[in-house]
Amino acid sequence: MSFLHTKGDSHLSVGPSPKSTTRRTLAIFGLLTLSSAILFFAPQFRASISSDVGENTWMPTTPGECVDTSPILTSAPRQNVWKNFDVDEAAAIRDWLWKYKDENGKGFNLTNGLAATDFDNSITLIENFTPPKEDVLGYFDGEQTSPPRFAKIILDLGNASPPTVGQYLLGPLPDVISKLSLSTSAIELKLLRHIYTRPDVPYTARLYALNGTYTEKLFLDIIKPLYNVTQDLLGGVVLGRRPGQVLSDDPEPKPPTLLFAATTPFSYDGSFRRMWIQLKKDLPGSFLMALDMYFYVDFTSMDPAEWYLIRMVYNRQAFASVEDFLGAYSNGTLKRSSPPDIPNSGEEAWAGRERRGNKRDLDERAGPRQVSFNGPRYRVDKDNQWISWMGWSFYLSFARDMGLSLWDVRFRGERILYEISPQEALAVYSGSDPHQGSTVFLDGGFGMGTATRAMIRGYDCPYDALFLPAITHTNVGTLLQQDAICVFERDSGKPLSRHIGYLKGEMGAIKGYELVVRTISTVGNYDYLFDYTFQLDGTIEVRVSASGYLQGAWWDDAEMSYGTKIRDTYMGSIHDHVINYKFDFDVAGTRNSLMAVTLENEVVQQPWFDDDWGQDVHQQKIVRRMIRNESDALLDYPKNYEGVYAIVNEEELNRWGYPRGYAIHPGISPIHLTNLNSKRTQNNVNFAKHHLAVSRRKDSEPRSSSMWNINLPGTPPVDFYKFFDGESLEQEDLTAWVNLGMHHIPRAEDSPMTLTNIATSSVLLTPFNFNDWDPAMESMNAIIIDIPEPGETWSGNENDVEIAFCVPPRVDRWNYPGISVFEEDGTPGRPLRVHEMRQQAESYHAIFAATEL
Amino acid sequence: MSFLHTKGDSHLSVGPSPKSTTRRTLAIFGLLTLSSAILFFAPQFRASISSDVGENTWMPTTPGECVDTSPILTSAPRQNVWKNFDVDEAAAIRDWLWKYKDENGKGFNLTNGLAATDFDNSITLIENFTPPKEDVLGYFDGEQTSPPRFAKIILDLGNASPPTVGQYLLGPLPDVISKLSLSTSAIELKLLRHIYTRPDVPYTARLYALNGTYTEKLFLDIIKPLYNVTQDLLGGVVLGRRPGQVLSDDPEPKPPTLLFAATTPFSYDGSFRRMWIQLKKDLPGSFLMALDMYFYVDFTSMDPAEWYLIRMVYNRQAFASVEDFLGAYSNGTLKRSSPPDIPNSGEEAWAGRERRGNKRDLDERAGPRQVSFNGPRYRVDKDNQWISWMGWSFYLSFARDMGLSLWDVRFRGERILYEISPQEALAVYSGSDPHQGSTVFLDGGFGMGTATRAMIRGYDCPYDALFLPAITHTNVGTLLQQDAICVFERDSGKPLSRHIGYLKGEMGAIKGYELVVRTISTVGNYDYLFDYTFQLDGTIEVRVSASGYLQGAWWDDAEMSYGTKIRDTYMGSIHDHVINYKFDFDVAGTRNSLMAVTLENEVVQQPWFDDDWGQDVHQQKIVRRMIRNESDALLDYPKNYEGVYAIVNEEELNRWGYPRGYAIHPGISPIHLTNLNSKRTQNNVNFAKHHLAVSRRKDSEPRSSSMWNINLPGTPPVDFYKFFDGESLEQEDLTAWVNLGMHHIPRAEDSPMTLTNIATSSVLLTPFNFNDWDPAMESMNAIIIDIPEPGETWSGNENDVEIAFCVPPRVDRWNYPGISVFEEDGTPGRPLRVHEMRQQAESYHAIFAATEL
Repeated sequence: MSFLHTKGDSHLSVGPSPKSTTRRTLAIFGLLTLSSAILFFAPQFRASISSDVGENTWMPTTPGECVDTSPILTSAPRQNVWKNFDVDEAAAIRDWLWKYKDENGKGFNLTNGLAATDFDNSITLIENFTPPKEDVLGYFDGEQTSPPRFAKIILDLGNASPPTVGQYLLGPLPDVISKLSLSTSAIELKLLRHIYTRPDVPYTARLYALNGTYTEKLFLDIIKPLYNVTQDLLGGVVLGRRPGQVLSDDPEPKPPTLLFAATTPFSYDGSFRRMWIQLKKDLPGSFLMALDMYFYVDFTSMDPAEWYLIRMVYNRQAFASVEDFLGAYSNGTLKRSSPPDIPNSGEEAWAGRERRGNKRDLDERAGPRQVSFNGPRYRVDKDNQWISWMGWSFYLSFARDMGLSLWDVRFRGERILYEISPQEALAVYSGSDPHQGSTVFLDGGFGMGTATRAMIRGYDCPYDALFLPAITHTNVGTLLQQDAICVFERDSGKPLSRHIGYLKGEMGAIKGYELVVRTISTVGNYDYLFDYTFQLDGTIEVRVSASGYLQGAWWDDAEMSYGTKIRDTYMGSIHDHVINYKFDFDVAGTRNSLMAVTLENEVVQQPWFDDDWGQDVHQQKIVRRMIRNESDALLDYPKNYEGVYAIVNEEELNRWGYPRGYAIHPGISPIHLTNLNSKRTQNNVNFAKHHLAVSRRKDSEPRSSSMWNINLPGTPPVDFYKFFDGESLEQEDLTAWVNLGMHHIPRAEDSPMTLTNIATSSVLLTPFNFNDWDPAMESMNAIIIDIPEPGETWSGNENDVEIAFCVPPRVDRWNYPGISVFEEDGTPGRPLRVHEMRQQAESYHAIFAATEL
Repeated sequence: MSFLHTKGDSHLSVGPSPKSTTRRTLAIFGLLTLSSAILFFAPQFRASISSDVGENTWMPTTPGECVDTSPILTSAPRQNVWKNFDVDEAAAIRDWLWKYKDENGKGFNLTNGLAATDFDNSITLIENFTPPKEDVLGYFDGEQTSPPRFAKIILDLGNASPPTVGQYLLGPLPDVISKLSLSTSAIELKLLRHIYTRPDVPYTARLYALNGTYTEKLFLDIIKPLYNVTQDLLGGVVLGRRPGQVLSDDPEPKPPTLLFAATTPFSYDGSFRRMWIQLKKDLPGSFLMALDMYFYVDFTSMDPAEWYLIRMVYNRQAFASVEDFLGAYSNGTLKRSSPPDIPNSGEEAWAGRERRGNKRDLDERAGPRQVSFNGPRYRVDKDNQWISWMGWSFYLSFARDMGLSLWDVRFRGERILYEISPQEALAVYSGSDPHQGSTVFLDGGFGMGTATRAMIRGYDCPYDALFLPAITHTNVGTLLQQDAICVFERDSGKPLSRHIGYLKGEMGAIKGYELVVRTISTVGNYDYLFDYTFQLDGTIEVRVSASGYLQGAWWDDAEMSYGTKIRDTYMGSIHDHVINYKFDFDVAGTRNSLMAVTLENEVVQQPWFDDDWGQDVHQQKIVRRMIRNESDALLDYPKNYEGVYAIVNEEELNRWGYPRGYAIHPGISPIHLTNLNSKRTQNNVNFAKHHLAVSRRKDSEPRSSSMWNINLPGTPPVDFYKFFDGESLEQEDLTAWVNLGMHHIPRAEDSPMTLTNIATSSVLLTPFNFNDWDPAMESMNAIIIDIPEPGETWSGNENDVEIAFCVPPRVDRWNYPGISVFEEDGTPGRPLRVHEMRQQAESYHAIFAATEL
């Protein structure tokens, strides 16, 4: 019997937390049968056995538990001024709005958001309004106090005269926001106008109401006469809003298996509000099961009795009314299309995620898992959502439209970017059916933040990631989503730098560690993975990847040019994804310029070349050109990538005389929108029409799109081109607007779901003479090897960094936090039924027909 | 006291090896003081404690050792027909060559490769010659026996008349290759011609001799009179070949700190052999420390006495001779350039890898490490270098010029690619000095395979990777390099597919596991990381990343347009890297066609669109075009990536009627060479002038370049354009030649070494309607989640795959295998001195001056 200090202990002193600095002693006595001892003594254990136990070679060393692997808590240097309101703060603001009276004593006459129809007034959004950058920098620099908070308030005022969308700023808010403090503060509700390029949002451009009662009533009126027809032609009938509800007096009703899916834009310039709706099968993967029946409906009027069907389309035949269609159906003139896909036996769930096919060799084993044997290397202030890792630090914020933003992104103490935010996610479809041929989605309008759901631990992020919550306050109430964001360190899988050399100090490598920040938004069919990857040299990779379902379409042979058949009667349609990002660079300060570095060909003569080769040297040269004006700053990457764009500070030079800069280095699929002359993408997605653009950074130009750009392509609230009005880019505060995306040509392998390895796009923001040399040379997780002369031994210097031999924590069993919804008054909402969750998540992608009003 | 079955054991039964299928029982008794017990009881242990030990809640569960993590051995289905000769086989072939007599009784009069000068005959290469594809397929299909082996023999015949480079095929070789068997076999030595597009290699285009005695003698003659001058102007004197040797009669000789570095190409069409050589500092990072003195020398004659200096250049002043230069130096007319960079105190090792700067927070901890807790999931036949993983399988081979190739790459039993091989690595420099302005490197000539050194375990590849050796037989003898290749599985860090949905089977994810095969070649200054990443859906990512040193240049202000200053007197020059790959696709068989899928804009009218939007629909359409002829198959990616190229089999359709195919999906930096009208890149790098090209696959067109293309830009042994001679691409065996690379605009952060995160380029080969749906749906490492109705609990199905809770093996301490060299007769070579290793590795990048002949 023997008392052993475990090997794992040798690393317990590295952590900064009191817990992990305490040395733990674990005494272990192993009682082993001879045979099991032999098996246990795998080669990798032998060294430790002999060195630790001396003579007792039959006794194994069992290592101790690893150093505490829970996140290391810290305090952010400043308050997170971008953080959204918490549950109680939002409830207090809602309370204030409900009680609000204007100077004429008139209130908003608000209806609860979940209950509000198109003809009610309700709160669409309460959100922390981004404070002016100047104020924030003053606060961060210690020159002033934390800037006063304002709330951005969006109201849908369907009951106002005229009906309108209300955009307001509420504030300044008191330091402590409560019902009491708000009622006693001198806060003002002002129109919010300065962040838009048009003054108002017409009510016809409003988003889809959560309470679609009136829409569903219209759909009921349309579909009820088609009960037998859909059963005959499409093999199903439309669902009622309540699961299982059938819209028929049929004594033996057919199983309800169809639903409606709508497209955007609803309008062009606000002069009308219309939707194409298509029937789909209500089976797992409904997004793929688009059926050959379409309805074009008008919702322009504020009297739902005036809403009407404009047209109905079936098998490329257009009808002015359901009656006309039924006439053709009855008199036999209707050309029938194929019956929808009937899967083979066992394939009914082809569009679900059920395992299929043969098990692969050894796949019953879990794959490799990364473990921080020495504990995590990042610190987090959970309250302020501030992270620091290997010289990097940043704050996080979360908002309804686009989800996660990063702020005050610093490396080795210097702010590199003030803001990194996705701006808009555009998808433009093509097709020869009414639905695909008219669809342009802008998912900011859909609400990518509110559409963010919890990560699946171990699948969407490593088990040992840090998971952070997100909160939004919209018409569904307050949605507190646990595990909405994950943060983890990983080994990139390759050395960041390395060399085999023969002189002293030439041979060695630096491990390529990275910190990843991820959030995933599921906007109906598609899942967008937003990744921000911080690297040891000062590089940030920004990447978006897509999974989830294609927006499927009905297949017939005339669709050959518009996509790919993925089942007998279904197809994936070609579409462009463009995701625009805002990079508010502060490169060595806020005074920045835009440099285009291009490679050009030249022919030169040199006095020393006159031999057999001839005198001419055909070679490249660098042309460094400053782009001095916004009007010249709508940019494409050069042909064959022969050049690079950089944001530089012309007044701050590195040691070798170059302006310190950051380059925008395109990654995979750095595309822009295929530029069509389409009215549906006319002015609302101008950000998408170039690879990138650089403008003066302004508080009044915070975003390249808006919540309503989706429905106003002709006259959008934010016309990106209006940012580019001839201002100087010379040593000014600059924002780069950069597009990621893909031209998605669907293939059979997009079924059942799109794959993130191909559906991915990235850009790298990387130092460009920002430093005097590579700052990753600071890394301790590095090795230098001295090559020995004959007879000597190899030696390496690893800076005394050693991976602990210890027992990593057991992986928590899979669990999922679900969604926490709070009522408008801040009280916990009742748990939602699955059907309700789906309705909120899929919105107008899955509309049922109402049976009652 | 209690006997416990450890939790880890529950996974010991998954492995297929006899060892791991044996259940091991480990009884552990923990004796703990009260305080240490409290500290030990971290939350993650509590569950296991209470469930396993019942009442004894103070007793921790310590898990057992993980299942055997050593590679799982298996047998390849067939012999590896591409495997190179082993030590003894090569020795036997060398013996045969040494003894060879032609019909006139004349032998080769061979000199040992290490000793051979330019004027001797020696063996440059013995290599397994790639067998004809038809024979291999016959063997693999079981229709014939293993194809007979032939050896590719390259001799440098400097002592022949006329001197020439000999290219031979030796064979057919007996099954067992030994001195005896060769001497008794009827084997023939034939000229090897059919794989080249010109009949011979002029001797002036030969590679640099290992024994550079005569070259060094010339350099000695040139430099000796400059002993005082280089000390004065450049701060150093040239080294002798022996370390520390000084080329002076100076009683107090200066420390020798300079060396010569040469450029290629040596010739244009074989009519001359010339080199620009530049002085560099012989300090760590010598590649960066280019000095302002250049010599242009002629080595055309077969009489070294006729070799001569053509010109000398210093500070942009050209001189016809050293005497002219010395005259100007003495009479004061020489314009002096700046003295070379004198680093500040403490910065002397700026170009080495020594840690510098501040330690980052928590960097004393080792970063995360991936562990296969359930054991590896790949199998390996080490003898045949055959790997299988998750449905993938492939053979490896290794050769002098380009290193690693992959063969018979199969997925789920179907061969996808017959061959994946890098073909050539081109670097073209620009600059206003003689060296950079004339440099074009083709690293295949340098020998990227022979330049491959062992991986640094834990840095270049994970600690638990499978490491495999590589062998080449060249003029250095037989080089058996352990750890030249690594293979490892990793978690890609993101789910391959996932969705949050609300109908049964919609919600879940598949883990994104990948298998990586890597080799790293250090060609003098640069390190190329070649990565092949196999993914679960049938996608292969091919990636090359660069690290190591820039080829530095001497800085003066006139160099501004040609690169970036990285020290006071040194710069990095702009250059293009292009790495060409051969992808011999066999998509559903060998009968394949090339399809271009492009996206075009169209305006269409539909009978159902006549509303406010107007009738015109501006949208995209797919145009699928078959490229039927080689002459049309030199291709660039479409503008803004609006389209894709795919290799398809028009006779093999997927279930939905599409030709089964694989797409060539560009990744990061998918560039081609900046097309210059330069004689130095005229005909020898035609493969580099387009993004990709597709030709008929032929045994006679095995490679897009050759060993000597580097020195024959005018009349190369392989002119790639000659492959494109109008043959049909319709249902033929096709090869895609695809370029990766980067336009490298150096930045301060390339110092001391280039970073692999930015210096990287990739392409993805991905199924394109090859399947009926995504085959990754077979994955067991996946989850499906059922969303509960209120009051119910979340449930998930993980296919019973569970990560074992067990003690992973201790990380082996860092070790490095060095290089194993064998003499030409197969006996182990004497251990090399560091200086010799360097000379072999850096070749003409680091030439010293000889003092004796």
